[in-house]
Amino acid sequence: MFVILVYDFAQKRVNKALKISRKYLHWVQNSVLEGEISNANYIKLKSELEMLMNPEEDSVILYTFRSNKYSRREEIGLKKGGDENIL
Amino acid sequence: MFVILVYDFAQKRVNKALKISRKYLHWVQNSVLEGEISNANYIKLKSELEMLMNPEEDSVILYTFRSNKYSRREEIGLKKGGDENIL
Repeated sequence: MFVILVYDFAQKRVNKALKISRKYLHWVQNSVLEGEISNANYIKLKSELEMLMNPEEDSVILYTFRSNKYSRREEIGLKKGGDENIL
Repeated sequence: MFVILVYDFAQKRVNKALKISRKYLHWVQNSVLEGEISNANYIKLKSELEMLMNPEEDSVILYTFRSNKYSRREEIGLKKGGDENIL
């Protein structure tokens, strides 16, 4: 399945959240990752983020799509993600 | 068409970016909005954000889907968006 993940973590946990998420998905923008993922890995990813997060402060949103791709992605302004911009 | 918008604006412009985006889409998380939008409004939304943004600092990512809905959205942690949490 195809997943888009958007996270919003407190500063002190944000690097760890990105590190976890990048094991499973491709980083496309500051707080956005996407990619094909198996159901097993989806569950692992979610549980790793849940273990890291403080649910009073952090949030994650996961969109899942049956089709394996969105039809278009447009980026305007600064390109913050991508493997060339590793923190 | 169905659109998911994720923005990342510098602090001094972030409220304006949210205000513009909320004219066209529903706010679902801190920096994420989604909804059905016409092509004409999509172009208006994009141009308003482009006028506001400093392309050296700010970024927007727009996912467009032919189907009118993702198949699932999961949120974990804090729910930051929604009309009950207007800044």
